[in-house]
Amino acid sequence: MLVQDAPTRTIQPADGGVEIIDQTRLPHEFVWRRLETLEDAAEAIRVMRVRGAPLIGATAAYGMALALRFGASDTQVRTAAETLAATRPTAVNLRWAVERMALRLQALPVSERLPAAWAEAAAICEEDVAQNRAIGQHGLALIRAAHKGDAAVNVLTHCNAGWLATVDWGTALAPVFAAQEAGVPVHVWVDETRPRNQGASLTAWELAQAGIPHTVIADNAGGHLMQQGRVDLCIVGTDRVAANGDVANKIGTYLKALAAHDNGVPFWVAAPGPSIDFHLASGRDIPIEERAPEEVSRIVGRAEDGRMVSVHLTPVGSACANPAFDVTPARLVSGLITERGVCAADRGAMAALFPDWV
Amino acid sequence: MLVQDAPTRTIQPADGGVEIIDQTRLPHEFVWRRLETLEDAAEAIRVMRVRGAPLIGATAAYGMALALRFGASDTQVRTAAETLAATRPTAVNLRWAVERMALRLQALPVSERLPAAWAEAAAICEEDVAQNRAIGQHGLALIRAAHKGDAAVNVLTHCNAGWLATVDWGTALAPVFAAQEAGVPVHVWVDETRPRNQGASLTAWELAQAGIPHTVIADNAGGHLMQQGRVDLCIVGTDRVAANGDVANKIGTYLKALAAHDNGVPFWVAAPGPSIDFHLASGRDIPIEERAPEEVSRIVGRAEDGRMVSVHLTPVGSACANPAFDVTPARLVSGLITERGVCAADRGAMAALFPDWV
Repeated sequence: MLVQDAPTRTIQPADGGVEIIDQTRLPHEFVWRRLETLEDAAEAIRVMRVRGAPLIGATAAYGMALALRFGASDTQVRTAAETLAATRPTAVNLRWAVERMALRLQALPVSERLPAAWAEAAAICEEDVAQNRAIGQHGLALIRAAHKGDAAVNVLTHCNAGWLATVDWGTALAPVFAAQEAGVPVHVWVDETRPRNQGASLTAWELAQAGIPHTVIADNAGGHLMQQGRVDLCIVGTDRVAANGDVANKIGTYLKALAAHDNGVPFWVAAPGPSIDFHLASGRDIPIEERAPEEVSRIVGRAEDGRMVSVHLTPVGSACANPAFDVTPARLVSGLITERGVCAADRGAMAALFPDWV
Repeated sequence: MLVQDAPTRTIQPADGGVEIIDQTRLPHEFVWRRLETLEDAAEAIRVMRVRGAPLIGATAAYGMALALRFGASDTQVRTAAETLAATRPTAVNLRWAVERMALRLQALPVSERLPAAWAEAAAICEEDVAQNRAIGQHGLALIRAAHKGDAAVNVLTHCNAGWLATVDWGTALAPVFAAQEAGVPVHVWVDETRPRNQGASLTAWELAQAGIPHTVIADNAGGHLMQQGRVDLCIVGTDRVAANGDVANKIGTYLKALAAHDNGVPFWVAAPGPSIDFHLASGRDIPIEERAPEEVSRIVGRAEDGRMVSVHLTPVGSACANPAFDVTPARLVSGLITERGVCAADRGAMAALFPDWV
């Protein structure tokens, strides 16, 4: 997608290392950061310089390549895979990418592993881009169907499942970008998505860069807007879809799905194949990451002098809890928008589209 | 309630003026602010130095007394009433208090109006305290009923309907304070309540002052906690209850009511008589205040050096919307906790308890 009118991806190999956009600095500063080692990649995932299930997977894949620069023995491959897989627990793409890399690399002689690692990571990235482009086209049909007269279609989204969450195009926002390309007018309600504000920081920034009309709202506001008929459809991303169609996504997604259901608003989940986990029977089994309480007690913003400042919000000594994801039951999901088409959030429909994943 | 172990109310007359706790400075600074004029009182309500339906009513009542210091003609009484009633649209207590004051004052000779205004405002405050104490006792029975074994009862609340929202005791938190007095162990999940963070700033501060265990959470987290069985009951306040039992309260309340309903968690609304508006047929008719977008795009916190700093959160140029309240349909409300007992959120039950208000 475009940043200051230049085509840009979130991650790219460069001179033996890897460059990522440091997303902890957005929307206030657009800064590239160079990763040189396995530990650089693990840190970037852990502290969320990169985030979003597909981009975590891509970064982990490149993290394997970075690790192998310093030796490509079976032990080194295994250690790198374990280190990366342990950075974050909820998204399944992370483990999928790491396992795919490890399987591919261990099948090769040690001397061939490093170039193969770079090639495989690049392939994962290209596949992600192609998947997301296809999700955009399938989702575009849903936006078109909601388009009446001259009015813009109002899409509500939660967190950031835009191109910053992927290598390019995004998952939940891919249909929005596709609508813009196709000339279908669209306006996006952007949940700010506390505690880390990925909506207000990342989704709003992406939409501003693309020139797409949008309005940031507190996470509390979406239900009221749906009651008022001001939301035509919801599209969110996912970190993992269980075999029964239950959807793990950023904390608060479940509340919006309840409101959509209560108001007859379609609730779509953009889910590329690697996000579907046929090995997990139900959403109850998805591990939910508990992140640091400081993400709730503090927030980072831009002060009057332009500096980024972290400020404290809660009384000294008040405890905070910070579950990072929740699970939306399949019964509240209108369907999944995948790269192979739209399907119901149930095992049969998902398996029919993805027989090779079951 | 206690502040640094000293019994404290949110508002009190002093030397011809009125003193309020400036709630825009909490939890970082505890500061009294003196109101001398009608405009001081109107400003304090408008910029939310005082907030919470009952305290807005009490402040408006004292605002009438402050206005009359400078003349007590019919015109002056009317002008003061209109100025105060226009400060905020959603809470019915504001108009109720102002109309009660105006009716009482206009019935008196001009020379008797000023002392009567002070006396009537004080009476409104005393009634508020008595009502909230009674709400506490009725709500205590609900908390007791949820108490099993040694485990603390987990109460989730949204925004601040504690003593800072009233003259003393609070509405939604009155049962929590009563539980503490009665030795029933209780733990409160405190929604931070963006955009103004009244939960993280005010409710958490109140509970910390009272020594009641509590945990601040992002507004997104409550649904997940209910799915996990970690919430025994919800208690929230209200700005206005319509005649059909629909409840206006801080934006986001509706989402928590949906989650409570979906998980079989009781959802109680603490509603003193003056919050019930028998003249409004349904919640659809309640005017919803739209507040400044800067409440979403910015936030105030405490920097490392102890200063309170306002920081910007969104991309430059991204629009924000800020509806301040939403309406929870009566079907999602387990019941109202009033000063006269607990009743269903429907016209018949409310009218049976409050025949004098219908």
